[in-house]
Amino acid sequence: MEVHDYLIQLLAILVAARLFGEIATVFGAPSVIGELLAGIIIGPSLLGWVDSNEFIIILAEIGVILLLFEVGLETDFNKLMDAGGKAIVVALGGFFAPLIIGFCAAHYLFELDYLVSLFIGGTLTATSIGITVRTLSDVGKQNSREGQITLGAAVLDDVLGVILLALLFEFSVKGEVNWVNTGKVLLYVGIFFMLAPILAKLMSQVIKRLDQRIENPGLIPTTIVALVLFFAWLAYWFGAPELLGGFAAGIALSRRFFLPFGLAIQTDHEFSERIEQQMKPIVQLFTPIFFVAVGLSLDLSAVDWGSLFFWGFSLTLVALAICTKFTGALLIDEPLPRRIVIGMAMVPRGEVGLIFAGLGKAAGVFDDGTYTALVMVIVYTTLLSPFWIKLYYRMFGKHLTEKEPVKQKSVV
Amino acid sequence: MEVHDYLIQLLAILVAARLFGEIATVFGAPSVIGELLAGIIIGPSLLGWVDSNEFIIILAEIGVILLLFEVGLETDFNKLMDAGGKAIVVALGGFFAPLIIGFCAAHYLFELDYLVSLFIGGTLTATSIGITVRTLSDVGKQNSREGQITLGAAVLDDVLGVILLALLFEFSVKGEVNWVNTGKVLLYVGIFFMLAPILAKLMSQVIKRLDQRIENPGLIPTTIVALVLFFAWLAYWFGAPELLGGFAAGIALSRRFFLPFGLAIQTDHEFSERIEQQMKPIVQLFTPIFFVAVGLSLDLSAVDWGSLFFWGFSLTLVALAICTKFTGALLIDEPLPRRIVIGMAMVPRGEVGLIFAGLGKAAGVFDDGTYTALVMVIVYTTLLSPFWIKLYYRMFGKHLTEKEPVKQKSVV
Repeated sequence: MEVHDYLIQLLAILVAARLFGEIATVFGAPSVIGELLAGIIIGPSLLGWVDSNEFIIILAEIGVILLLFEVGLETDFNKLMDAGGKAIVVALGGFFAPLIIGFCAAHYLFELDYLVSLFIGGTLTATSIGITVRTLSDVGKQNSREGQITLGAAVLDDVLGVILLALLFEFSVKGEVNWVNTGKVLLYVGIFFMLAPILAKLMSQVIKRLDQRIENPGLIPTTIVALVLFFAWLAYWFGAPELLGGFAAGIALSRRFFLPFGLAIQTDHEFSERIEQQMKPIVQLFTPIFFVAVGLSLDLSAVDWGSLFFWGFSLTLVALAICTKFTGALLIDEPLPRRIVIGMAMVPRGEVGLIFAGLGKAAGVFDDGTYTALVMVIVYTTLLSPFWIKLYYRMFGKHLTEKEPVKQKSVV
Repeated sequence: MEVHDYLIQLLAILVAARLFGEIATVFGAPSVIGELLAGIIIGPSLLGWVDSNEFIIILAEIGVILLLFEVGLETDFNKLMDAGGKAIVVALGGFFAPLIIGFCAAHYLFELDYLVSLFIGGTLTATSIGITVRTLSDVGKQNSREGQITLGAAVLDDVLGVILLALLFEFSVKGEVNWVNTGKVLLYVGIFFMLAPILAKLMSQVIKRLDQRIENPGLIPTTIVALVLFFAWLAYWFGAPELLGGFAAGIALSRRFFLPFGLAIQTDHEFSERIEQQMKPIVQLFTPIFFVAVGLSLDLSAVDWGSLFFWGFSLTLVALAICTKFTGALLIDEPLPRRIVIGMAMVPRGEVGLIFAGLGKAAGVFDDGTYTALVMVIVYTTLLSPFWIKLYYRMFGKHLTEKEPVKQKSVV
């Protein structure tokens, strides 16, 4: 492919994302569904105009990192910490229930191999943090109490997912697992989350000083994107998913993040506003690419739609995939409607599920039938939950708003 | 390379561009020189941290297309048309003089082959429109009279360059040239330039209507970038350089472009301002990537610095490359200082020269020695002219401002 071929693909992605996003809105669905469908329609599943090539994959990764940066920027750190305990329960429940029940169903019900069943359980643990936060922001709830709990849980799930992925990969290659290494990764990720926001805050102060002195235009777009990329790389280096680096940088630069130990660095509202204003168009340009790319990577033309085993297997997994994600949410002490919304928001597997399934296929653990069945699980959970959530808010949203009107208010 | 490798390269490019851009400013040089040097320093010439891979090349292409879009956006169409006649003289002089004199020097003085000499002459015709407009904007003169003449001439030179490139390539492969095809390309490019701004204007009206109705955020960044990419593709389809598609789209969306035949579409200042405000951070993010990529593609480690022939040959070409570009500028009826500035601004060969030299190498016309000598010519002309221009304005700028104070005023 030549340069102009890539440009025309990028053009197709941007136009399709917008077009189907708007169509979804007209039908009352969140626009993220339209963007996912756009990828399915222009991708290998249907029209085959655009393939999931390296250029698109890198732009999509930048898109989801920037999305998490923006989520971090709009997050109230104190609220997130308040939601911390409950987020841990939601994350652990929504991680271990799909893992164990998915494993058991695959191994005992469908009599699959030990390793295959483990990878199926692993795939079901995934939570697509990108789709989860985008769904909540499409309905304007990312700063609600349920939004904060879900966000915290999705972040934790992403960390747990990466560790499980590393464990499963090691196990499938070597036949055994090095628990000391796992402990190290956990420790590193913990260190990253403690230090990254502080480091990002200090670096942002340098940018702020430069911003006051430097006359050459374009300081904020280049340096803030560089800062976000740096923390994405740092997260990767510490063994955490890259997009969590973007989240840590966003948290640090948000108006409501203060350094610990009373370090006397004032949060400058005017500077934060300049960052938000200049970063918004960049984030809005890149993030649709991510959602379309998720759709592109779901190749539905490979599915054997006539197979009975395929339908039985995939529908069972879909049912398990949905039910098990509610486990953690139902255990916490919140009004039932809120617990249900949190459970729903944890359901989409999205790109994280695809990474698991793709690794299983690449390692030779999954045959084509199992892989496409898992892709179907990912498609169902990814496409339907944003829709349910919007519908649920329309029907029962009143109960949530009335009970905690103050916390419900958006801070954006 | 994996995704995180690309991200860290992008990070290196953004940070190096900013750092060396600022250092250049401290030393009184335009920041574009710093960005070009950044590419030479982190690229294969020196540190070898970043290579000129496909991902970077595509981002750079988007960068220069967006840069030309912004240039178009800030261009006063009437002023550009006023400068048209003189721009044609500057373009033709600055195109044929280097071609003929470069060919003669190579063929008669250095006794090189007919075809090799033709390619050398072709390489010397190039004008780097990106570096030219950036240099003028670094000194705040892109909307001055000399800025408009240079811009028009650089646009024409780019079209002529693409046609010459196609002719030389055809000649080197087939041994003959199809003049009918050449005529067709010229006709197509002419049609493109007449119709593209009108089409872009009409499409922007659709976006404006949508902007008033649609509630989903992010309409302007995605649709305007898509519009620019569409016109870049259209330009390519018509046989013109892609970046001129960006320029046509920018002209059409600028506040001062009105449709011909009195078509009653009002230019909406508020909408134009929204586009400028939201596109600026995106343009500022992408354009430094282009200039660093030009630096990356100049591999100075391949130069045989001890060769006497290399020095004699390359310095002769450098002298010719600089002098011949003044031919057109000196022929027009303007005050001498202005003619000198225009001539200087036409000197940088940049990426366009590299495309010529690279094609000559790929076609087996240039041996390594000739190729590196041409790279040196490109390096000299690219790095030094922005510096001269800034220096010249500091020394003689007064003469230009005093003579035509009204036209000198920036409209941005």
